[in-house]
Amino acid sequence: MSTPPPYLALDADDTLWHNEPLYQASQRRFRELLFDYHDPAWVEARLNETEIRNLKHFGYGVKGFTLSMIETAIELSEGRVTAAQVQSIIDMGREMLTQPIELLPGVRDAVSELAESYRLMLVTKGDLLDQESKLARSGLGEHFSAIEVVSEKDRETYLDLMRRYSIAPADFTMVGNSLKSDVLPVASLGAVAVHIPYKTTWVHERVTEGDLSGVTYQALESIADLPAWLQRTH
Amino acid sequence: MSTPPPYLALDADDTLWHNEPLYQASQRRFRELLFDYHDPAWVEARLNETEIRNLKHFGYGVKGFTLSMIETAIELSEGRVTAAQVQSIIDMGREMLTQPIELLPGVRDAVSELAESYRLMLVTKGDLLDQESKLARSGLGEHFSAIEVVSEKDRETYLDLMRRYSIAPADFTMVGNSLKSDVLPVASLGAVAVHIPYKTTWVHERVTEGDLSGVTYQALESIADLPAWLQRTH
Repeated sequence: MSTPPPYLALDADDTLWHNEPLYQASQRRFRELLFDYHDPAWVEARLNETEIRNLKHFGYGVKGFTLSMIETAIELSEGRVTAAQVQSIIDMGREMLTQPIELLPGVRDAVSELAESYRLMLVTKGDLLDQESKLARSGLGEHFSAIEVVSEKDRETYLDLMRRYSIAPADFTMVGNSLKSDVLPVASLGAVAVHIPYKTTWVHERVTEGDLSGVTYQALESIADLPAWLQRTH
Repeated sequence: MSTPPPYLALDADDTLWHNEPLYQASQRRFRELLFDYHDPAWVEARLNETEIRNLKHFGYGVKGFTLSMIETAIELSEGRVTAAQVQSIIDMGREMLTQPIELLPGVRDAVSELAESYRLMLVTKGDLLDQESKLARSGLGEHFSAIEVVSEKDRETYLDLMRRYSIAPADFTMVGNSLKSDVLPVASLGAVAVHIPYKTTWVHERVTEGDLSGVTYQALESIADLPAWLQRTH
């Protein structure tokens, strides 16, 4: 009997495919929509506040973001936003859910190579159906043996994942673009965290230098470097 | 080494706690909101159409339902719905996400008894965070060893569950109130399906007598009867 290959956990949004630009494009259109009422910086700040406030009820993902845009539009227009404008916000949300998936450079080859030596596990926040649909549309689905959509990426979530898949922390590797969600909680559990920065970071995912002091993790410039790095270290 | 207890899969909404009444209460308020524009039966039919049309993008759950209510209000009012009315729809959605959980009769005792002999698995559609939050608020969380929020409850979903948990169909039992989602796909795989009807069924979950012809499943009147039935048959 041969040992099954080890698990390798990968983040999805902004690690495998572009995601933050979709949100930024919607935010840009949203600021234009409210241009008659407020200056763009103010709109952005208030939308961000509404999003953060709604996270505990709506969770992450496009549907909650869309509801937050509508609430912000009502508030900032003091009730003058029109039904047609509300509809255009819902249409933005639906577009975000159906956009073609644009893989990051090197992802297709790296994932296909990694799948030969690892059981790949997608670990992501967001709306369940949306994430499943993105994986399917990405063409990468066949390479993944597990998809875990989680409501939060904190220590408890990763502990629970390792317990459910019977993985010891030392054998668990998580790869992603978010220091807050993919790196810090994983490294703090004694598991291996690999950070592949994306060009922009959602404000809610930002961390301070203090959060990072004493944390051991590996930074790679591109997912294309991941197979070789894993081979050297494992 | 003792064998771990077998898994027992349970649906959540309208099996463990009341859920459909929450949706019906929101729909009632929604029909009142649009009373000036259309008669209630017409509003109900159009909302249902919008929901079904949006399922493929929004999936199941309160957030998608809320977005569908807003779209229907805009459409049926021909754009005359006010921002305040849209806000009241979003508030309805948020209330649905924060309502106290009302367990069905007999659930607390039955679940606590079943947890002594089975590893309980919650299998439910809906928004991930909402379902996790409901399980936590229900006070039943400690009895469950697994929570599986799925985007659809069809044959593929159940096959995937059994594969991931290494459960043979003959050893898999699913208990729930929906013939379409909890009973038919499970029975068709040769697994054990137990139907515990709820007083009302969401129109999208209804099946015809033809769908049921030749299907073997067990109907129980109440979850209180489940422990004894399992003991007799296992």
